Amino acid sequence: MREQFHGDLASLSEQMVEMTRLAGSAISRATRALIDSDLVLAESVIKADEDIDRIQADIEDKSLELLARQQPVATDLRVIVTGLRMTADLERMGDLARHVAKLARLRYPNSPIPTELTSTVLEMGQIAERVVTKTGSVIAGRDLTLAAELERDDDEMDRLHRELFHVLLAESWEGTVETAIDVTLCGRYYERFADHAVSVARRVAFLVTGERDAMSLEG
Amino acid sequence: MREQFHGDLASLSEQMVEMTRLAGSAISRATRALIDSDLVLAESVIKADEDIDRIQADIEDKSLELLARQQPVATDLRVIVTGLRMTADLERMGDLARHVAKLARLRYPNSPIPTELTSTVLEMGQIAERVVTKTGSVIAGRDLTLAAELERDDDEMDRLHRELFHVLLAESWEGTVETAIDVTLCGRYYERFADHAVSVARRVAFLVTGERDAMSLEG
Repeated sequence: MREQFHGDLASLSEQMVEMTRLAGSAISRATRALIDSDLVLAESVIKADEDIDRIQADIEDKSLELLARQQPVATDLRVIVTGLRMTADLERMGDLARHVAKLARLRYPNSPIPTELTSTVLEMGQIAERVVTKTGSVIAGRDLTLAAELERDDDEMDRLHRELFHVLLAESWEGTVETAIDVTLCGRYYERFADHAVSVARRVAFLVTGERDAMSLEG
Repeated sequence: MREQFHGDLASLSEQMVEMTRLAGSAISRATRALIDSDLVLAESVIKADEDIDRIQADIEDKSLELLARQQPVATDLRVIVTGLRMTADLERMGDLARHVAKLARLRYPNSPIPTELTSTVLEMGQIAERVVTKTGSVIAGRDLTLAAELERDDDEMDRLHRELFHVLLAESWEGTVETAIDVTLCGRYYERFADHAVSVARRVAFLVTGERDAMSLEG
């Protein structure tokens, strides 16, 4: 019975790792669609978000079932309840990748990102991929070193986010208001994507250490 | 024992209603701070967000305790788990009000909102207040008519959100890139605030009816 229960928990954890894989693939393809004005790719990201949503609904159903059937207490209870919150973060990351893809689709055949910001946005996309991959490893292996690394990746994301504004606000910048709006929204999507990844890693750290601010960082 | 349990559930629900009151007060004051360039008001909103966070942490602790101690099943279990998700939405609404206040503080003694958009943003602020007040009533009274009204308020918020872009993108608009960025971010904060309110109302509807799309609307 108890062994079965831990098997069920492990399977929920695997499903969360699968969500990180899908979110990683989504943000990677969304970034390419954005920079290369690739409509087919953008559409595929928008469509694929359903898969992430489906896994979330499945995890929720199974978690409620486990809570009702097994009546876990202490750590087991906390693992399931925290898992539900993590799953919500992961689902939101899928939404944010979809938002990026929708912006690519909206401006097709142009790119919403002007050439002078291509490399910054590409880098934000790479960091987004990196954080979600690490988030998957943190969930799978409860590796707190990796969780701390994620905080640094997030700092780097914030730096790039500020850089976007810096370029847009430079006297020399000659772009349109539409581009300023698009870049502002895109920047926010990538930044929130990384925030959610960090939030998932912090929850795992909390599960492992029992301390809400296990990484001495603000919530 | 069972009576005590339902008393505990009612008290969690009251705490959530208190969160909606605080979030409503926060977004109302943030809007005034934004339009009137009121630094003291902006600071007070930023500071007050801690109270919302504290109630959330308290609801989480009490919910875990209830799950462990009472081992609820069926509806009772669902009420607690859904409550945790609702609480996360309400906490996020507090964050978004704080973001608006931070923008007001950043641009003080100027307002980030240009005169031609003052009335639109004021209206978005009023809708935000209205939705969070209704959300409180939906939680307190499980009133599905009100939940449906919230969906319409959200549509109105989306319309105003689009109106912001419409003004910014008009040929005649002569504002700066900084203003375009500020308005874009602000618009997003108000829009997300309403989204979270709708999300809470939908969760209540799901609890009452047991149907995921009780209001025949997309998740």
